[in-house]
Amino acid sequence: MQKYFITTEELDQNLIKGDDVHHIKNVMRFKEGDEFLVSDEHEEYLVKLLAISKEVSFEKIKKIENNSQLPFIVDIYQGYPKSDKLDDICKHSTELGVSKVYAILSKRNVVKLDPSRYQSKIERFNRIMKEASEQSHRNTKASFGGIFKLKDVDFSSYDLLLCPYEESSRENEKSLFKESISNLKKGAKIAVFIGPEGGIDIEEVKYLESVGFKMVGLGPRILRTETASLYVLAAISYESELR
Amino acid sequence: MQKYFITTEELDQNLIKGDDVHHIKNVMRFKEGDEFLVSDEHEEYLVKLLAISKEVSFEKIKKIENNSQLPFIVDIYQGYPKSDKLDDICKHSTELGVSKVYAILSKRNVVKLDPSRYQSKIERFNRIMKEASEQSHRNTKASFGGIFKLKDVDFSSYDLLLCPYEESSRENEKSLFKESISNLKKGAKIAVFIGPEGGIDIEEVKYLESVGFKMVGLGPRILRTETASLYVLAAISYESELR
Repeated sequence: MQKYFITTEELDQNLIKGDDVHHIKNVMRFKEGDEFLVSDEHEEYLVKLLAISKEVSFEKIKKIENNSQLPFIVDIYQGYPKSDKLDDICKHSTELGVSKVYAILSKRNVVKLDPSRYQSKIERFNRIMKEASEQSHRNTKASFGGIFKLKDVDFSSYDLLLCPYEESSRENEKSLFKESISNLKKGAKIAVFIGPEGGIDIEEVKYLESVGFKMVGLGPRILRTETASLYVLAAISYESELR
Repeated sequence: MQKYFITTEELDQNLIKGDDVHHIKNVMRFKEGDEFLVSDEHEEYLVKLLAISKEVSFEKIKKIENNSQLPFIVDIYQGYPKSDKLDDICKHSTELGVSKVYAILSKRNVVKLDPSRYQSKIERFNRIMKEASEQSHRNTKASFGGIFKLKDVDFSSYDLLLCPYEESSRENEKSLFKESISNLKKGAKIAVFIGPEGGIDIEEVKYLESVGFKMVGLGPRILRTETASLYVLAAISYESELR
């Protein structure tokens, strides 16, 4: 069932005013009487469409109680990858329960991005993550946190810092990741740094370790940069949401 | 390090003759003395390039002992998805240790594919999976098994049949998947059926259950068809390869 994140004001007024009006009208082609879900990230309702003009008015049918929140707050710090891979990472990590995705410019980045383009990129990734949050029926929207240099990020508020590292896999490191996440308390904050295609420079490894990152192996095969975040999030869901 | 799957004859003769010659020459631009890995899926060697002409000759430096095989045989039966999603599923599931990927035509398939195009599609997916096998340093190549109607597949040789199902997640089913895979013996054969974008028809659910599939939930969020296979494979790797 289609879900829309709307503002608390819209939810109170039973009225949708923003970009979603276009989606309701022209993409979903909803008519009077059609049902969908709306949420302001605090309360969620099944609603029935009453009328469409420049705005969409609806009637609340019932309140939905549904917890689809990952029990941890997981932020992905993704080395800026090539082509449109960051679109896919934003989309799929949102389905898998990420809280925020940040793009990180590190030593071996292949992508050279003009800072004048940051704003439009950030808006694009946020749009993708809002839509993926709706599609996967999350309680809250995942969001894109921005584009930063690695050393400009303050990781001090996290309970656990993890970095999947090819060399750790090669050295047969296979206990740190599972051990770390199986011991976490509900609500813990986790940051995951994933290197770009070119990998992580040895100076950066030293830096990451100095601020508290654990370099972890994710099994014996070499994962692409866009697969590593999905592995980590799927494993955290498997460990904490299934039983 | 670059790896190539070559034939046993090529490995015995220290000579590469096939499509990889183009890749070595024009993509990697290797020169005399450059090192790479070759494997015939049984034995793997670090080798040094000796000469490039229409063929590539090499010298064996040392035998590599490296087990990157998932402890189970996992085949993905993927409801044929839209656009180029099957490319990505083939690529990423190969990194995550899949054995074979099959594309399945089921009731709610959006894609209508002319059987005259099957052959070129199959070749394309096999090429993608060979390259992903090399890139992820697998011991053996993953491969594409073909395009079939659901009811034409014989699932009787598998030890475990799993189908991630949205309705199971909705009904809060969260123990069957973990329970099933944590009890498996090494070498067990697992088939995973993933519905296409349109989901799985109720008749198909009955059919899948009648041949022994367990309908499993993968957590409280709704996953896209292309994310479900990666979740399953990442979770199997996490469960069986990390500790």
